Amino acid sequence: MSDALVIGLDIGGTSTRALVTSLAGDRVGTGTAGGGNPTSHGAVAAAAELAKALSAALGAIDPARVRAGTIGLAGVARLLADPPSRAAFDRAWADAGLTCPLNLIGDALVAYASGTASPDGSVLIAGTGAIAVTIRGFALDRVSDGHGWLLGDAGSGFWLGREAVRATLAAMDAGHPLGHLATAVVETLMPPGTTGTLAGGRADLGALSARDKVDLLVQRVTRRPPIELAQLAPLVIAAQAAGDRTATAILDEAARLLTESVARIREPGDASPIVLAGGLLVGDTPLAPAVERELAARWPDAKRPRASDGAAAAAWLAARPLLSPPEAAALHARLFP
Amino acid sequence: MSDALVIGLDIGGTSTRALVTSLAGDRVGTGTAGGGNPTSHGAVAAAAELAKALSAALGAIDPARVRAGTIGLAGVARLLADPPSRAAFDRAWADAGLTCPLNLIGDALVAYASGTASPDGSVLIAGTGAIAVTIRGFALDRVSDGHGWLLGDAGSGFWLGREAVRATLAAMDAGHPLGHLATAVVETLMPPGTTGTLAGGRADLGALSARDKVDLLVQRVTRRPPIELAQLAPLVIAAQAAGDRTATAILDEAARLLTESVARIREPGDASPIVLAGGLLVGDTPLAPAVERELAARWPDAKRPRASDGAAAAAWLAARPLLSPPEAAALHARLFP
Repeated sequence: MSDALVIGLDIGGTSTRALVTSLAGDRVGTGTAGGGNPTSHGAVAAAAELAKALSAALGAIDPARVRAGTIGLAGVARLLADPPSRAAFDRAWADAGLTCPLNLIGDALVAYASGTASPDGSVLIAGTGAIAVTIRGFALDRVSDGHGWLLGDAGSGFWLGREAVRATLAAMDAGHPLGHLATAVVETLMPPGTTGTLAGGRADLGALSARDKVDLLVQRVTRRPPIELAQLAPLVIAAQAAGDRTATAILDEAARLLTESVARIREPGDASPIVLAGGLLVGDTPLAPAVERELAARWPDAKRPRASDGAAAAAWLAARPLLSPPEAAALHARLFP
Repeated sequence: MSDALVIGLDIGGTSTRALVTSLAGDRVGTGTAGGGNPTSHGAVAAAAELAKALSAALGAIDPARVRAGTIGLAGVARLLADPPSRAAFDRAWADAGLTCPLNLIGDALVAYASGTASPDGSVLIAGTGAIAVTIRGFALDRVSDGHGWLLGDAGSGFWLGREAVRATLAAMDAGHPLGHLATAVVETLMPPGTTGTLAGGRADLGALSARDKVDLLVQRVTRRPPIELAQLAPLVIAAQAAGDRTATAILDEAARLLTESVARIREPGDASPIVLAGGLLVGDTPLAPAVERELAARWPDAKRPRASDGAAAAAWLAARPLLSPPEAAALHARLFP
């Protein structure tokens, strides 16, 4: 076993990352490639990026030394249910010279394992969407939300962006002076020089009535795909930093909704860890501390680690069955110092 | 003036209704035709339905006796801004032999006038969408909401339907037994015999895991136009009648949001009337009394009449400038006994 290696891959919508490591935690190869989500990019394109990342990570390493490999990706159930897609992944694996079995798992489990070595716990992911998952014995147990922007994703980036526009429209309807957040929303959606094609023909923004401005703002949003509202989430974060009360209230409500989503599938008093993941909870955003406060109020004994390197987590999940529990814990500590 | 007549028309998405009345309130002709909303049906088709309703309402009446006419319709600003559409309406008017000017106004003002003869007040409309408007001197003053399902329409039929699905998904995620409302939502969206095409291939509903059922329910909604969620609003009303607590909470929240929308454009203590309009507030629904309670708490001195006959309201608005204030009040009382 001394020269045995494992490989882990984290395939996301915008990048694919691979890590080859020894069972002691020596990082012997890394690779990156373009986005490889088989749902959004097609399995063939995803498999091509997978091949690129594998080739870069393995380099001159004898692939026969790789004893186990794990790939984490979103929408894994759909991939496993589609034999041609699964075959494209298996082919890329074999073409890289890998002879160990390929283990495909969901991105939530990888995010979880990047934050903790505990077999049981929860992971809360907030990015464009939002989902909470409980893990039992390193397998998915229960799922809450992740229902998409129309019906769910409460507290997500989409939700923050939509609430920002809703608060702006409410202030405009009420004739209130626009605060930091509302001003940022208006300037982002209707930059200076914007013209409208409302009743009465085209008009400069400055020439529009208050109601016409409201209608134009609504049109600016509704003529684009709804999911693009997530692009406004940074405005809420910036406005909160500038002391805007509306932005603070929106973020507090997001933290409450995300915590409620966890509570739907997690017992009160559960002391297992809750991993925070996704761009809104691992980055330097005010949502993370707000969520921490809410989680601490409900589960005071639970640790709240942040998710980190997904490729390392996938590699660790590949290595775990080959190791004793203390060895697995030591490897996790080395990979996630 | 003794033989002078006026004509009023209410053009909605599904029907066009016309009324010819004397200035004393004698109804001398009525007509109906198909939906004529120029936004959804095109102005030419709308004008054709207008012609039909005019012809039926006028019958053998000498059109020269008609001294004034008003048409109320949704999206009137867009019609007025589009000369060919406006011309199609004017042509139908002239072809019916009418020589008086045609006054085109919005549906909110017509709904308002069908509930009160007061020149100042508010109207709250809740149907598929939701909007609140304040009226000053029988003209639109301020508007709140009406921002469409993605960004607004808080408390509307769409909102009720979406909340019904969201509450159902939350109960399914939590593994709670499904109550009256959630059961109705599942049976409506996934009737017995429903099969899914989720991970693992097609499966009968009964064979699906809890999570697969959640995913299938989300798919059933998201593969259809979002606005169709409004079709689920009656499930909330029926479940409330059956004592379902979730349905009651959703309706109470809708009433609160609708009232908040009014409050955004109406001063505290305003004693002018608030007309309730739209299918969710004039029908026999539990939303109307809930809204009445909320409105009464904020504006205890305001009457809360229900909207009624839109064609009669349009006719009254046409007649009003021809009458003294007491005559106008008497005509309103006769048309809306």
